[in-house]
Amino acid sequence: MSLFVANAVFHGEHVGLRVAADGTIGALGAEVKPEHGEEVLDAAGAILVPPLVNGHTHAAMTLFRGSGGDLPLMPWLEERIWPIEAQLEPEDVYWGTRLACLEFIRSGTTRFWDMYWHPEATARAVADAGLRATIGAPFIDKGRDPGPIRGAARESLAMLEGLGDPIRASLAPHAIYTVSEESLRFLAELSAERDAPVQIHLSETAPEVEDCIAQTGLRPAAYLDRLGLLTERTLIAHGVWLDEDELALVAARGVTVVSNPAANMKLAVGKVFPYPAARAAGVRIGLGTDGAGSNDSLDLLADLKLFALAQRHAAADATAIKAADAWTIATGRAAPLLGATPLAPGAPADFLLLDPRTPELAIGDLAANLVYAADRTAVDTVVVAGKVLMRGGEQPERDEVVAKAAERATRLGL
Amino acid sequence: MSLFVANAVFHGEHVGLRVAADGTIGALGAEVKPEHGEEVLDAAGAILVPPLVNGHTHAAMTLFRGSGGDLPLMPWLEERIWPIEAQLEPEDVYWGTRLACLEFIRSGTTRFWDMYWHPEATARAVADAGLRATIGAPFIDKGRDPGPIRGAARESLAMLEGLGDPIRASLAPHAIYTVSEESLRFLAELSAERDAPVQIHLSETAPEVEDCIAQTGLRPAAYLDRLGLLTERTLIAHGVWLDEDELALVAARGVTVVSNPAANMKLAVGKVFPYPAARAAGVRIGLGTDGAGSNDSLDLLADLKLFALAQRHAAADATAIKAADAWTIATGRAAPLLGATPLAPGAPADFLLLDPRTPELAIGDLAANLVYAADRTAVDTVVVAGKVLMRGGEQPERDEVVAKAAERATRLGL
Repeated sequence: MSLFVANAVFHGEHVGLRVAADGTIGALGAEVKPEHGEEVLDAAGAILVPPLVNGHTHAAMTLFRGSGGDLPLMPWLEERIWPIEAQLEPEDVYWGTRLACLEFIRSGTTRFWDMYWHPEATARAVADAGLRATIGAPFIDKGRDPGPIRGAARESLAMLEGLGDPIRASLAPHAIYTVSEESLRFLAELSAERDAPVQIHLSETAPEVEDCIAQTGLRPAAYLDRLGLLTERTLIAHGVWLDEDELALVAARGVTVVSNPAANMKLAVGKVFPYPAARAAGVRIGLGTDGAGSNDSLDLLADLKLFALAQRHAAADATAIKAADAWTIATGRAAPLLGATPLAPGAPADFLLLDPRTPELAIGDLAANLVYAADRTAVDTVVVAGKVLMRGGEQPERDEVVAKAAERATRLGL
Repeated sequence: MSLFVANAVFHGEHVGLRVAADGTIGALGAEVKPEHGEEVLDAAGAILVPPLVNGHTHAAMTLFRGSGGDLPLMPWLEERIWPIEAQLEPEDVYWGTRLACLEFIRSGTTRFWDMYWHPEATARAVADAGLRATIGAPFIDKGRDPGPIRGAARESLAMLEGLGDPIRASLAPHAIYTVSEESLRFLAELSAERDAPVQIHLSETAPEVEDCIAQTGLRPAAYLDRLGLLTERTLIAHGVWLDEDELALVAARGVTVVSNPAANMKLAVGKVFPYPAARAAGVRIGLGTDGAGSNDSLDLLADLKLFALAQRHAAADATAIKAADAWTIATGRAAPLLGATPLAPGAPADFLLLDPRTPELAIGDLAANLVYAADRTAVDTVVVAGKVLMRGGEQPERDEVVAKAAERATRLGL
């Protein structure tokens, strides 16, 4: 039985939306009416908007939330994160990711880019939660024998490719300071061979840039370009310290850069992503939360406000970013690689219904309110591939998922 | 019939809390059990915490939300705000404030400091909503005859004083650039005479500081001190550009400074409140949202995260602020003037119950999660003076208040 959404408001007009049997949008418009036998979801004037796309996270790190967050970066990593990550089992990653998915759904995020250990467990959690994700296993080989790691990367990619919808396989070199030049070249070739996206942390801190220049004579983006890693398949997480030449280069190569304002501010990297210059250069831009260990929420709608505020603050200019542009970025529509799909017939039936009774949406411009005033409590209904994942803010699986994730955290001593 | 809260968790211990007939906490502790005939609210393991105190806002400006927010400051004020403020009626202020109160309650804020036109309407809205507020009418006399304005200020103060609980009367000189030196001296004397708090915008922008120096030879805090306006009764909103000498002075005088990170970043004033230096100097510190026209939410729990992130970012130091200290500030317990009361017998029965099933509170340290991970959806129950204002996140008056405020905004052309 197909789903029919009646009485939704889309661009100010009352519309009907029919989900086709294959989970795509069958029809959408003011003239679209329910037929006999259709399951009708009465939106009651709810606002139909596209879902958010989280361009960078480590979903299972919900397990590390609220732990050591007052520490500086290196003691936090060395004392809290790495010793515990060494003990991670697939079931830890599964339940940590399920908890993350619960939070993604609650905040209107239906698609995310993930880089974490045990990616098969992440993929299973994403499928069980009904979401969509581009997943890659972190690749780290500095100080180790790269041969087996490359073999594992190829196998991991093939495994993820084999899963098909809702999983998209990617490669995930961790960073230029943790992956050898030879392996970065290998991953560039593998990406081209398999037409696989590549996600990498880049230009997050000033020392990373300084070390790159000292070791290669190039700034990070130019270094990646020399290795063949700057392409339309590449997603750079952070890009805080990209200079104007690098922004022009990543724009020319069609690279996507994902800003993670909460993590950058929490880890105190000293600067924010240079959005005005990136926009001027024509860079494809996305927004991410990063992992819950360094945010610590996974609420992209909250971070959308933070992104806009941080840009206005950094530029000391209240016109540094328009609300409508910020909303476009958070919904993944400023960077095709992110995978956002349009609200149009033939596209996947992925959408949100916003509660029209939300106090913060009652007065003023919708885009401005979505960025600066409303929060995830406005998200009433979340639909992915025509399946209703949340309705009235209720998530039936919540208590079980929270309890299981908390058990796994306890097991790990978190 | 008195209210008894059973099975709440307070500092990790299961407790009972009895509300006395006068709305204070009658008893609180592990050994406190309900008696026959008491109305029992089963907290079911909910976490008992103090409510938040919003140290600076213009509540009725919910009417201006989502309007002109992409404009620079002066066109925004001159084209959007001032022409409409000139047409405000008390009923506009009443319903705008009711909408604000709805949002304060939803985010766990039970007490706020307000500066706005038609303060009698604000006071009525606060009382009807069941909240507490310190209220002052804005005082502006530059370019006008100060005599009648001073008379009105004295009358307005007396009117607000006459209201008694839950309203606290204050004086509210708008700023040093909108109030004459003579009137600032007058208000200092009136504050001393009536033992009335004074709230004033100070050191929000760099031009304000430069103009003050040019006109008086003094930086803003020193200028206020010369006029007798720096006392334990004084609340400074913003204080972004206070330098080390000024911080030492306001600390010595026992002044409270309220940081408004969202508004400062949105209006792009170029800097954030210098928290590390203020803490080192011993300044009394609070947190505020400012008005919804320049934020645009009134969610202090969200701004608590922003405050901490902005401080870590500005200092380029992840240890710039501890989560527990940030939580203390947001709950008004770092500045006695703000009016926060302890969770202890004899104090007003004002408290929150946080849903223990909240995903973002399941793993890790409570204070860290309250600052960085959880949002207002964690706030299940809000109690003020022993009265339950919200339970299970439900606010029965929501739809009516939202509709009435939206009507008033429409009337004003917003």
